[in-house]
Amino acid sequence: MDIDAELKQIESRIGVLIEQQFESPACKNLRSACKDTMQTVIDQAFTSSEGGKRLRALLALCSYDAVLATKSNTQDLNFEPSLDDPKRMSMIDMACAIEVFQTAALIHDDIIDESSLRRGKPSAYYALTNVYDSQQIGTGLGLMLGDLLASESFDIARNSANNLSNTQELLATFADTQRNVCLGQVLDLSIEMMDLSDPKTLADSSVNVFRWKTASYTTVAPMHLGLLAAGFTVEQAHDFAYSVGEPLGIAFQLADDLLDVVSDPKHTGKPVGGDIREGKRATLLADALQTSNESDRKYLQEAYTKKTRDDEDVKKVISILHTSGAIDKSKERIKDLWNKSQEALDNSDLNECGKDIMRQIMNRFIPEQWRK
Amino acid sequence: MDIDAELKQIESRIGVLIEQQFESPACKNLRSACKDTMQTVIDQAFTSSEGGKRLRALLALCSYDAVLATKSNTQDLNFEPSLDDPKRMSMIDMACAIEVFQTAALIHDDIIDESSLRRGKPSAYYALTNVYDSQQIGTGLGLMLGDLLASESFDIARNSANNLSNTQELLATFADTQRNVCLGQVLDLSIEMMDLSDPKTLADSSVNVFRWKTASYTTVAPMHLGLLAAGFTVEQAHDFAYSVGEPLGIAFQLADDLLDVVSDPKHTGKPVGGDIREGKRATLLADALQTSNESDRKYLQEAYTKKTRDDEDVKKVISILHTSGAIDKSKERIKDLWNKSQEALDNSDLNECGKDIMRQIMNRFIPEQWRK
Repeated sequence: MDIDAELKQIESRIGVLIEQQFESPACKNLRSACKDTMQTVIDQAFTSSEGGKRLRALLALCSYDAVLATKSNTQDLNFEPSLDDPKRMSMIDMACAIEVFQTAALIHDDIIDESSLRRGKPSAYYALTNVYDSQQIGTGLGLMLGDLLASESFDIARNSANNLSNTQELLATFADTQRNVCLGQVLDLSIEMMDLSDPKTLADSSVNVFRWKTASYTTVAPMHLGLLAAGFTVEQAHDFAYSVGEPLGIAFQLADDLLDVVSDPKHTGKPVGGDIREGKRATLLADALQTSNESDRKYLQEAYTKKTRDDEDVKKVISILHTSGAIDKSKERIKDLWNKSQEALDNSDLNECGKDIMRQIMNRFIPEQWRK
Repeated sequence: MDIDAELKQIESRIGVLIEQQFESPACKNLRSACKDTMQTVIDQAFTSSEGGKRLRALLALCSYDAVLATKSNTQDLNFEPSLDDPKRMSMIDMACAIEVFQTAALIHDDIIDESSLRRGKPSAYYALTNVYDSQQIGTGLGLMLGDLLASESFDIARNSANNLSNTQELLATFADTQRNVCLGQVLDLSIEMMDLSDPKTLADSSVNVFRWKTASYTTVAPMHLGLLAAGFTVEQAHDFAYSVGEPLGIAFQLADDLLDVVSDPKHTGKPVGGDIREGKRATLLADALQTSNESDRKYLQEAYTKKTRDDEDVKKVISILHTSGAIDKSKERIKDLWNKSQEALDNSDLNECGKDIMRQIMNRFIPEQWRK
């Protein structure tokens, strides 16, 4: 499977699907200001939809291919799916639906977090705020754009599911995913308000948030949808998605948080310690609170209760994350989850060729140095 | 058809459907702060879902019954649907899906408009802001609650459509409606920024906004869904929904705006002139700008460009709406649209009994004095 070719196909298909949604009569024959505003929102829909790594779409497609490889009973590790198979084209649409849903979720997420940056560009609500020099208008248009893309993702999924196996289960899974991501966001907001004096509860709750806020749509749903669509039974698909996908998804979020602290800004396009500056409370902080010395713990509690954190704070927090062992603990968590996920893959119903397809794409979720 | 009994059934069914969505494992086994926050959001979901007039659900159900009456070829004007028919129970769920979607849309609408009041109670985001003494948390939780209910509405619609005629057309119509309402909101925001020196364009644009922002989900979609579900052909349902439903829906919004200015606050539960205080730009204002004298027009332009309007402004604007003839013009618009809608109903494919069912429910959309 040529992942870069797949990526290109997914990217261009997303563009087509986004375009289709603005073919509504509500977008036609508009006058002056209405026409301009609609065009601005349409442009933003394209801008916000570009530039993702499409890991979720690729994972869904690989899961689909892995079942096909298993069913075809091939021993050939270079199994090639037939690219113009109409069922597989529908699966590509389903994969795109996940990406469109993610874009919708991120647009709303940036409103909630008041984040001005997304994928290296101004976030949707922030860009729209700048166009109209009004936060109310920018937030309103951004909120609506998120709503539009979320309902579009449902409609893309519905159309594609009609041509795939397990149609109703696919749509129920898609709906479950949207629900779980929203519920995960609610839990995430509740952690923002959590007392920092009980880091054990914070750590447990934070990992639980990762299950719903991240793993659900990043790894569990893509696998679940791909496997169902290719004809795995409901039970097979569910077991695989949770045993292989959930640990992978939690590890993915832990790795993402860790990258924020240890990575080179030249590679990530983000300044180091962005999460710290935003005061994000998650596992890394919880681990540091549990293992740091008294004075460092007090410092962390104060720093994360303040309204803002400056460069000095970020530097000191990073240093405490190192000395307390929180960074090593995160690496350990990631490795354990990765191993768990690999083990479940090894024991799964896929044949060797199918497993190999999965390994290739799963490798992309976690940086190599943290997998071993 | 006993509308009050139907209303009760719809109300209790909405409660059951809202409850079901929180049966997700993401809501289970939560610790301390997470558990409390989730419960607060669940409680708010019920509070926000209560107290609607359920006009949309009733219209959908009546449209369904009107086709059944026509198909049964009854001459009896007291046609009684069989209440325990499983198909009709699915239609009730579809009717509830429209209401759940409306609740979601209103929750987001209140965030955009920064409205603290909804259906006589604190709006969702405002209530949540008060609980946590944080606008960011309140807005974030409100945004997520809206997302949850919107995706829930899709899932309710999908489950019900499986047991109804025209399954795929029903779901496509439901998706179109969500899309059109969002696009209508975008247009509404663009009107907020419109130049007040061209009231003719403002009037035309405003009526166009009503088509998408209001009529689409208030009258067009309920009719469309009810007729399709009962077995009208795609063409029959579409023609009826647009010829009967669209003028009714636009008239409904015009009447709602008019009520804001001329009604007795004792009946509406809202202070007179709330829309004026908020600076809402719509048809009533556009008509006044077109027909008022020079100095009144100047006053209106200034009043609606200011950041806020006080009691004196509201009083003066209302007086100009009267003297300019804008209020009479709105009444005329409403009557014309009402007549258009009635005429289309008269010429429709429904039999006399079906038309009678429709007349009963349509009467509820427009106050009696404005229909003749």
